[in-house]
Amino acid sequence: MVGQDASVGAGTVEFWFEFASTYSHPAAQRVEALARERGVPVVWRPFLLGPIFAEQGWNDSPFNLHPAKGRYMWRDLERICTAEHIPWQKPTRFPRNGLIAARVAIAAEGEPWLADLVRALYHANFAEDREIGERNVVADVLASLGHDAEGWLARSETPETKLRLRDQTDRARSLGIFGAPSFTAAGELYWGHDRMEAALDHAADVSAA
Amino acid sequence: MVGQDASVGAGTVEFWFEFASTYSHPAAQRVEALARERGVPVVWRPFLLGPIFAEQGWNDSPFNLHPAKGRYMWRDLERICTAEHIPWQKPTRFPRNGLIAARVAIAAEGEPWLADLVRALYHANFAEDREIGERNVVADVLASLGHDAEGWLARSETPETKLRLRDQTDRARSLGIFGAPSFTAAGELYWGHDRMEAALDHAADVSAA
Repeated sequence: MVGQDASVGAGTVEFWFEFASTYSHPAAQRVEALARERGVPVVWRPFLLGPIFAEQGWNDSPFNLHPAKGRYMWRDLERICTAEHIPWQKPTRFPRNGLIAARVAIAAEGEPWLADLVRALYHANFAEDREIGERNVVADVLASLGHDAEGWLARSETPETKLRLRDQTDRARSLGIFGAPSFTAAGELYWGHDRMEAALDHAADVSAA
Repeated sequence: MVGQDASVGAGTVEFWFEFASTYSHPAAQRVEALARERGVPVVWRPFLLGPIFAEQGWNDSPFNLHPAKGRYMWRDLERICTAEHIPWQKPTRFPRNGLIAARVAIAAEGEPWLADLVRALYHANFAEDREIGERNVVADVLASLGHDAEGWLARSETPETKLRLRDQTDRARSLGIFGAPSFTAAGELYWGHDRMEAALDHAADVSAA
């Protein structure tokens, strides 16, 4: 059993994502449609995998540290995106630093357009090969959605926002999260895009019970 | 693209398993029924993950090296086995040495009862908590299926059988295999119990084309 955020209902799925994570791309693009079909609310939870990987002794993505696994992942992801009709091209740089994007997403928690922003940032990285680790690229994505880019970037850089991202990463760790995407629902943890439906089904079952 | 064994047709799935591997248990129990539904032949390929893990610098299962991942895996596997009605209990020792079992399975390649034997060995390890790393337990499983246990164990211990297992492990590595279960079909590699249906569907599509 993993701890539920007291502020979200038992029938809610918390969707944990890291902007550098490849499999978080199809998850981010698909989760809302699948959740809607089941009547399950989704709370978007940006966090950082870097500190969690560092505790495991990794200073890079496991897909770079283990080349056979990396080669497989790129092909597997291509197959998934093709099957799900999700735009995709292999980025020329991997992983990209998700810190700026994660801070903006934390600053925008609760905004009705947060999910659109997250999807647009994943699209920029994994479909347009844009350097989302750079402030001006994140600003451009914000502006393309009609938001006040400098205002949101300023909010993302306050000590309070930075602390909230650290706290959210600590909470991810305390929930047993070790990779992304992850999903928590009614005391259960699910890891990977391929467990997304199971997490949503579990939340729907709990709601129906 | 991964290399196809010239001796198997393009519409055939090769199922790569390691007896120590937890997720190979549900894969072994389910693969034939799912393949039959699709009219896809399956060739069973025992191999050893130990030498492949050792090249990655691991001297133990990644589920033991990374405790959060290990805790998650045991719960995830329990959920899968419950959902699929596969008998399961957490073994008191993990991983168990699959060498003797793999050599027997290699010796029995081509036998019509190979799949039954493999399923029985996984059941012994992951449902009955039996020490399949020991020769007498493998002998007992062989005998319980009506086979000449000492005869098959003797065949499993010949230099030729040992070499065949090494060659098969080398072939797994050359196909890009880095974990178990894996599936190869018509030039594609799939890793994990959760990719089994995709592998079978790909083989069926290739056959229908």
